[in-house]
Amino acid sequence: MRKKKNEEEIVGKIERTFGSSKVKRLPLTFGDDAALWRPSAGEETVLTCDWFLEGTHFLRGKHPADAVGWKCLARALSDIAAMAGTPRCFLLSLALPESLTGKWLDEFLRGLRRASEALGCELAGGDTTRRDEVLISITVVGEVRVGRAIVRSGARAGDLLFVSGTLGEADLGLRQVRRMRGVARITNAALRKHLYPRPRLELGQWLGEKRLATAMMDVSDGLSMDLARLCAASEVGARIDGDALPLTPLAKSGEARALALHGGDEYELLFAVSRDNVRRLPRRFRGLRLTRIGEITRERKILVTTDGGTAPLVAGGWDPFRD
Amino acid sequence: MRKKKNEEEIVGKIERTFGSSKVKRLPLTFGDDAALWRPSAGEETVLTCDWFLEGTHFLRGKHPADAVGWKCLARALSDIAAMAGTPRCFLLSLALPESLTGKWLDEFLRGLRRASEALGCELAGGDTTRRDEVLISITVVGEVRVGRAIVRSGARAGDLLFVSGTLGEADLGLRQVRRMRGVARITNAALRKHLYPRPRLELGQWLGEKRLATAMMDVSDGLSMDLARLCAASEVGARIDGDALPLTPLAKSGEARALALHGGDEYELLFAVSRDNVRRLPRRFRGLRLTRIGEITRERKILVTTDGGTAPLVAGGWDPFRD
Repeated sequence: MRKKKNEEEIVGKIERTFGSSKVKRLPLTFGDDAALWRPSAGEETVLTCDWFLEGTHFLRGKHPADAVGWKCLARALSDIAAMAGTPRCFLLSLALPESLTGKWLDEFLRGLRRASEALGCELAGGDTTRRDEVLISITVVGEVRVGRAIVRSGARAGDLLFVSGTLGEADLGLRQVRRMRGVARITNAALRKHLYPRPRLELGQWLGEKRLATAMMDVSDGLSMDLARLCAASEVGARIDGDALPLTPLAKSGEARALALHGGDEYELLFAVSRDNVRRLPRRFRGLRLTRIGEITRERKILVTTDGGTAPLVAGGWDPFRD
Repeated sequence: MRKKKNEEEIVGKIERTFGSSKVKRLPLTFGDDAALWRPSAGEETVLTCDWFLEGTHFLRGKHPADAVGWKCLARALSDIAAMAGTPRCFLLSLALPESLTGKWLDEFLRGLRRASEALGCELAGGDTTRRDEVLISITVVGEVRVGRAIVRSGARAGDLLFVSGTLGEADLGLRQVRRMRGVARITNAALRKHLYPRPRLELGQWLGEKRLATAMMDVSDGLSMDLARLCAASEVGARIDGDALPLTPLAKSGEARALALHGGDEYELLFAVSRDNVRRLPRRFRGLRLTRIGEITRERKILVTTDGGTAPLVAGGWDPFRD
C-alpha cells in the first residue's frame, strides 16, 4: 500500500521544489513557526491575499495543475502591480486531498515555481492541510516607495482613461476551456492568457515612478464592474468610447466588444491620466499596448458610447456573491 | 425575496465592523487592490498564515460564530508569539455561503474584532468569495527587532525545556464540545481555552527581548509532535519528565497526562533555556505559570520518564495528512 503523505512530507516537497532562500532578506527556511522578512528603508509594504479555489476559480479536470500553480500567484501579483508595487515574497496556504499529493502536487509546484521565478516573488512560508477539494490562498508581500502607491481614489473629472493590452481574451479562453474535452492546452492567445496570465508589474511600477496615473486598478472582475469601483472610490463617473476598446481579434466584433466590457480574469491595468500628462504616455510600453478608452466625468454615471448612441454601462462582470 | 449579498456588501460589512484604520501606518481603507503598511526601522517583518476550515478546524453547528472569529486570529497570532514577535496587522481571506452573510457573519466579525482589539492586531485587508462551506485563511504581519526572533533550531544539549500554562485543556474542551448538544458555551476553563485561546504574545516578546530562550515554538499539534519538530530543527533530542507536566485538574491523572503529551490546539509556548540563564526565569510570568518539563539531550531521541520507567515519546498529536 502506498504510504500516506503527512503534513511534514508535503512541506518537504514544497521546500525541495523551491530550495532554500538565497536572499539574506528571507533568513529562515520554510519550516519555522513564521517567516522573517527584512523590509527596505523608505518603502511601504504592499499586502494582498487572493483565493484560488477548485470549482470556483479553476476546474480540476480542465485546468492543468501547472497552470493552477502559475495562475494562483500571477493573479495575486496583479494586485501588487495595480498599486505600482514590486513583489518581494509570498505565503502559500494550500489544502488538498491526499490523492493529489503525488503528480498533481509536483506539477502544481512546478507551475508555481516558474511564476515565482519569472515574476520575481520568492516563497517565504505557508500552511498546509488536508481537504477533499483543492483550496489555495496566496498572500503577497510587495514594496513601494513611500508616497508612490497608486490607489483607486485619485481620479478627477477630465482625466483620460487607459487600459493595457487587449480586453476579453482571458474570458474567451475560459469559454474555450469549458468546451474542450479533458485537460486544456494552449492553442491560441486566448487560452494562453486564461491559463498563464502575466500581471503588468513593470507597467505599474513605471506609472508609479513617473507619477503618471491619478488612479489605477487591475481588471479582474470585468471592465464594467471594476471601472464602477474605481469611479466610486474617486467619487466620479466615466464615459467609455465603445469603438476604442482594444478588442480581441479571436472573436467576432459584437462578441468581442461584450467580452471587452464584461470579461473577467484579464489582469490588465486600468488607469486614469491627467490631460497634462497624456503626452508623456507612450502608445506602447515595452511592447504592451496602452489604449485610451474614455474619460473621467464629474457626473457620477458610467456611460458607454457606440455608433448606436450613449447608454449606461451596466456592470456585468463576475461576482461570486451574485447569482 | 431576500436580496442576495454581493461581494461588495460583504466587504462593506467587514469595513463597518472594523472601522477605518486610525493608525497612520495603515494608510488605506479595506477596499483598494492591496493594503499598505509602514514597517518600522530596525525591525524584521514576521509573516505567517493559518487555515481555519469548517469541518477540519471547527464545526459550524457546535462552535459559536463568535468563537470562530476569535480563534482564527488568536491561533495565527500564536505563531507570531512563538517567534518573539509583536503582531501589527492581518489579512482575512473569507469564503462563506450566502445563507451565512447575515447573523453568522455579524457574530463572526464581532469575535474577530474582539480578538483584533484584545491582541493588538489590526485588520489591513483581505479577499472574500462565496463557497458552500466556511473557509478562512488568516495572514498575520508582525515585527521583531532584527536578530531577536527566536527560531526552532537554536536548542543545545543541556538546555532545559519549559512550557507555559497547562497542557491538555484545549483538547479536553474539544472533547466536551463534541459531546454537547447544539452550540457550545463556556462552562469551565477547558471550554474557555478551546473556544477562546490566548496566544502567549507577552511571554514570547519578553523571552526575545531578554534573549532567554535558545529555541521556541508554540504547541499547536500536541507536545509530542511539536517537540519532535523543535528537536529535529535543532538536531538534538529531549528527555521529558512525565511527572513534571502541568496537567489540567479537570481530568483524571492518567487521562490528564495523555492530554498533556498529545493534546493539540494549546497555543502554549514550548522553549529551551540554557542552564546559565535558568535562574533569570521566574516561576510565573505575569500570572502565567512556566514549568520546567525536561531537558535537551545530545542523543537524538525523545524520551519520557515516569514512575514506570523511561520510554520513547511517540508523536500522537494531530496531523491533517495522517489517517
